[in-house]
Amino acid sequence: MGEFELIRRFFAAAPCAQPAEGVALGIGDDCALLQLPPGEQLAVSTDTLVVGVHFPHSPDPFLLGQRALAVAASDLAAMGAAPLGFTLAMTVEQADAAWLQAFAQGLSQMAQDCGLALVGGDTTRGPLSLTLTVFGRVPAGQALTRSGAQAGDLLCVGGELGDAAGALPLVLGQRESSGPAAQQLLQRYWAPQPQLALGQWLRGRATAALDISDGLLADCGHIAAASGLALQIEAQRVPLSPALQEIAGVAARDCALAGGDDYRLAFTLPAEHLPALRAQWPACAVIGQVLAGSGVQLLDAAGCLVDPPRAGYQHFGSAGD
Amino acid sequence: MGEFELIRRFFAAAPCAQPAEGVALGIGDDCALLQLPPGEQLAVSTDTLVVGVHFPHSPDPFLLGQRALAVAASDLAAMGAAPLGFTLAMTVEQADAAWLQAFAQGLSQMAQDCGLALVGGDTTRGPLSLTLTVFGRVPAGQALTRSGAQAGDLLCVGGELGDAAGALPLVLGQRESSGPAAQQLLQRYWAPQPQLALGQWLRGRATAALDISDGLLADCGHIAAASGLALQIEAQRVPLSPALQEIAGVAARDCALAGGDDYRLAFTLPAEHLPALRAQWPACAVIGQVLAGSGVQLLDAAGCLVDPPRAGYQHFGSAGD
Repeated sequence: MGEFELIRRFFAAAPCAQPAEGVALGIGDDCALLQLPPGEQLAVSTDTLVVGVHFPHSPDPFLLGQRALAVAASDLAAMGAAPLGFTLAMTVEQADAAWLQAFAQGLSQMAQDCGLALVGGDTTRGPLSLTLTVFGRVPAGQALTRSGAQAGDLLCVGGELGDAAGALPLVLGQRESSGPAAQQLLQRYWAPQPQLALGQWLRGRATAALDISDGLLADCGHIAAASGLALQIEAQRVPLSPALQEIAGVAARDCALAGGDDYRLAFTLPAEHLPALRAQWPACAVIGQVLAGSGVQLLDAAGCLVDPPRAGYQHFGSAGD
Repeated sequence: MGEFELIRRFFAAAPCAQPAEGVALGIGDDCALLQLPPGEQLAVSTDTLVVGVHFPHSPDPFLLGQRALAVAASDLAAMGAAPLGFTLAMTVEQADAAWLQAFAQGLSQMAQDCGLALVGGDTTRGPLSLTLTVFGRVPAGQALTRSGAQAGDLLCVGGELGDAAGALPLVLGQRESSGPAAQQLLQRYWAPQPQLALGQWLRGRATAALDISDGLLADCGHIAAASGLALQIEAQRVPLSPALQEIAGVAARDCALAGGDDYRLAFTLPAEHLPALRAQWPACAVIGQVLAGSGVQLLDAAGCLVDPPRAGYQHFGSAGD
């Protein structure tokens, strides 16, 4: 048996690969078989992470496993889909048992947190790279897309932004810091929590949604373009964590506006749903509104239009995705 | 707009990315949405192809696009699934417009041949690598797995084997040949035809099936192991093309037995279905039978057990998958 066959058996035995609801046939045949309840659609998204592009060389394998799945699962949250399963295509330079075990532990931890079952995949030799395809289910016609925003809707986000961008100098080893604030930012970078429950709650309420990966301003631009409207953001309403403000100082707000890697939801919401949002999801914040027009407008504390900050810091995602 | 955003728009405009039955939402949002008829399950398979491992450096992009999708779609055929769609995760060193256009043409050609719609994907910078996840649909409980073979079943294959293995010295540039036989083998290597219609016909008839990728003997070993039985192969009944015999000479049979990359189906069939198979699928051949026991037995023309040939030639798949 070759070492790659061993890897396959290793993943097939991982906790996240065990029988799960909605998975009629898991790892080990030519295809996996997924089962959908009547009236539901399958949501599918594919993400690739490449060493040196999306994460540093020699990453901690446990953290890499966690983060890779979280990034992919966040797209399910953005559609309002309930988690079902995922496939993992993994390219590694060599089959290192300890490395793989730690990776599988991180992956399984996040899979358990998200409610996603590993249903198949492929393992090949080559430069370290991961492609995850995630599957969710959503009642037909109820998925949250980017194109439904309406003038007058509120623009909201799922919580504090910028922590992952604030963590980047730490991730890259450009800065050393071991205090609790630094640890919190690193945790947000390596183990983002896909907002799956929030996404499902937003079905039938939000008019458009996505998950923030490129940065708030860039991603709001996607909603604006898809919906044919303008999104106006009041910069001082964007929530920042105390940890980010401690680590990033005056750059904290730019991290939140342009930094990326947040994997929190941004969504447009008719005002009638605001009381329910506040009651159910107190971490969510209204940061602006939807207007006739196009593009994204940024307002300062005085309500004046300002130029958006450039995403000037090094950003793993910027080169490749 | 970055060059990778341009690639995404390029693929979104490709013929294979246009609206298709079963695809409720295609490229451009956080997820694609697939729709299944009531009572059907979704078949899913993921395959990765890495430059230098699964295909030569500097491949013809049109041929690479064709072959990558064919290899992935063959897993749908092996389950008896009807084709639905696929995602493409593509990692490239740089965005070369002419290269990408040729690649997309090859991909679209095979997508059209197979009836598969491009529903999403990801494009990143890095060493050339492709991960395709294919989706098909199959009536619940009717998928062809590897585990259902019964003692007494006939062992069959979907047509002539070994052409792709016979093409490898040509693909690798170890041998020059421009005659029609060489062209036929190269065509079989670069544009395998997934046996999707045969796979669907075998539903309710074959007891086990897979597609031959690792080589007939190795893949029959997978059916034997999953079914808990032995598979007996009569070497001289394995069909060989005249082109392969011309190019490979005495090595032709070893190419067919151990070569791999065939992407034809191997399946076990109760004898009662043989007349219908012969009538509908004349290219299929009975090459042996299922017996009590374990493993794969190879018989020579005199009916004597012989040792299987070693897969001795260079094989792109052998190092990584």
